[in-house]
Amino acid sequence: MSSPTATAKGYGISNTSNYTDFSVQEFKLKTPHADDVTLDIEVCGVCGSDVHTLTGGWGDLSAPWVVAGHEIVGKVTHVGDNVKEFKVGQRVGVGAQVLSCLKCDRCNGDNEQYCPEQVDTYNAKFPDGVESQGGYSTAIRTHQRFVFAIPDAIKSEDAAPMLCAGLTVFSPLVRNGAGPGKTVGIVGIGGLGVNFAIQFAHHLGAKVIVFSHSPNKKDDALSLGADEFVSTSEDGFADKYFDKIDYILSAADANSIPLGDLLSTLKVDGKLTSVGLPDEAWEGLKPQMMASNAACVGCSHVGSKKEANQMLKLAAEKGIKPIIDEVLPMSQAAKAIESVKNNTVRYRYVLKQDLA
Amino acid sequence: MSSPTATAKGYGISNTSNYTDFSVQEFKLKTPHADDVTLDIEVCGVCGSDVHTLTGGWGDLSAPWVVAGHEIVGKVTHVGDNVKEFKVGQRVGVGAQVLSCLKCDRCNGDNEQYCPEQVDTYNAKFPDGVESQGGYSTAIRTHQRFVFAIPDAIKSEDAAPMLCAGLTVFSPLVRNGAGPGKTVGIVGIGGLGVNFAIQFAHHLGAKVIVFSHSPNKKDDALSLGADEFVSTSEDGFADKYFDKIDYILSAADANSIPLGDLLSTLKVDGKLTSVGLPDEAWEGLKPQMMASNAACVGCSHVGSKKEANQMLKLAAEKGIKPIIDEVLPMSQAAKAIESVKNNTVRYRYVLKQDLA
Repeated sequence: MSSPTATAKGYGISNTSNYTDFSVQEFKLKTPHADDVTLDIEVCGVCGSDVHTLTGGWGDLSAPWVVAGHEIVGKVTHVGDNVKEFKVGQRVGVGAQVLSCLKCDRCNGDNEQYCPEQVDTYNAKFPDGVESQGGYSTAIRTHQRFVFAIPDAIKSEDAAPMLCAGLTVFSPLVRNGAGPGKTVGIVGIGGLGVNFAIQFAHHLGAKVIVFSHSPNKKDDALSLGADEFVSTSEDGFADKYFDKIDYILSAADANSIPLGDLLSTLKVDGKLTSVGLPDEAWEGLKPQMMASNAACVGCSHVGSKKEANQMLKLAAEKGIKPIIDEVLPMSQAAKAIESVKNNTVRYRYVLKQDLA
Repeated sequence: MSSPTATAKGYGISNTSNYTDFSVQEFKLKTPHADDVTLDIEVCGVCGSDVHTLTGGWGDLSAPWVVAGHEIVGKVTHVGDNVKEFKVGQRVGVGAQVLSCLKCDRCNGDNEQYCPEQVDTYNAKFPDGVESQGGYSTAIRTHQRFVFAIPDAIKSEDAAPMLCAGLTVFSPLVRNGAGPGKTVGIVGIGGLGVNFAIQFAHHLGAKVIVFSHSPNKKDDALSLGADEFVSTSEDGFADKYFDKIDYILSAADANSIPLGDLLSTLKVDGKLTSVGLPDEAWEGLKPQMMASNAACVGCSHVGSKKEANQMLKLAAEKGIKPIIDEVLPMSQAAKAIESVKNNTVRYRYVLKQDLA
């Protein structure tokens, strides 16, 4: 079998102070392995994580030049000898993770996203030292465990945002029982997958209550499948929902949401998961706030391949797709990044290949 | 049937600034109801809650004069016409709750401790306005739902601390699956039921790891059934326990425990419940601290009658009993309260009747 391409080109930055100063450079792809899949990138979603990383909000860059992007859809150009699941020409996706040890209990238990040796799609390093670079680029190579087949029914630009934003909300929803007979609260309608969260919770069979401080998103929420829309800026908004909610998924900056009020709506032993990762700690969270119903608050990190496949199947069957603000050529990444940074993005930007 | 006694005498205080200035006064018991059980009090445990209340740490007193104590064991002197479960002369106990609505889903679902109309055993009011007064007194009357039969195998002074401290740890342990094949972490060995937590978790069949900053309690912990004792003052104490613990129960002042390290020991989707209720919020708790294993932190509030009966049965069968520092005459309540307040109590004081 022929050797796969060794390099790709991408839009990267070198300095978090100039986080929209993208330069096009060539970079080395992952050292090829018999389990690897190489793909030419067609589209890449712009995720809040990209902005946190490029602006330095989550710390310094791990390499002198970093390509962001981990909502990647493209076409397979090469597969290693061990790869049976994919073939050249097939449309596939890569999300926020590109490797794990694949040997530990977590990896063997469909929890590879919680493997302590997990490697992020960009701004990280493979075990051999090669830098991982993201999807604002021409190609990516990674282990087949972290590659997902995209169903024909889903357009590439609709599939891309599912692979981080979608999976990030789908995994905790299914793990926490969102389904028939359950009432799920969704908090923080905005970029990070909330439009997916509403749709997934609805199509999984749950009753969906959206809690939002953006009343102008009410129509969107209801049209996506929310049963009720509650404005959290109204005093006493939570009273009516006391003991009504089985599970709450928050994609908001959790340190600024009305945590006490939201927790009061949970049934006994209920849970609130925050997939929003604000820079600051939760403000004023006391055990007492969960004493009246044995509630708990937790977090979650993307999802497993098993969950990704389950999500893509559901999306294909139910016609679930994101609301996309605009599909831009990749060279306009700066516009998308600025818009996410300034919170003028309504839901999601997707970048389309223009380097290849 | 004869009318039950209308009043009792107790040791109460009027001013949180002089929280050991007990006076003996007569007070009105709960207005009798056909579902009520009246008992003469034999012993009463001294709980951390008593100190929080008497010192004003949890707020002002709700009445001009308050009798603390909610770990009560005594003998039935009267039962209402609807009471079939208990008979006069029987040894019974009352814990931290004396009423709830008994009509809502929570009450009907063995979650009466989470009923929004729950009435605390002292420093609260019954719906008709009568003040609830605690067990540093000669008698108490309450609804049969909040009265527990004490098995013959358990001595009164051993049973008393089970009714708040014991139940407070037993309920979350059983709700969160402590049992064979599970590893449970216990944090904050001290007054609030940790000696029960170790014993219950052990006798429920779980492997028990105690995390403590008091190395001088190691022998006690191991003798009570802990499989391992970990000193949290050693750097990197948590490393060895990465991904090893299914569930953590903390009875410590949670805002000062090494929360990040402890959470790192949890398996995927694990949980830490704090039954300690510090006055301050958790310091620096961020969703990120739970992103690597989808962990969560929560709280819990005493337990249901169903759980109390299950606990007392287990304790009787397994010979579980608290470590008691001293059984004091009730007139020495001040000594016990000061000792809990100054943290010189090792585990528990129990007060013995001396007014009747």
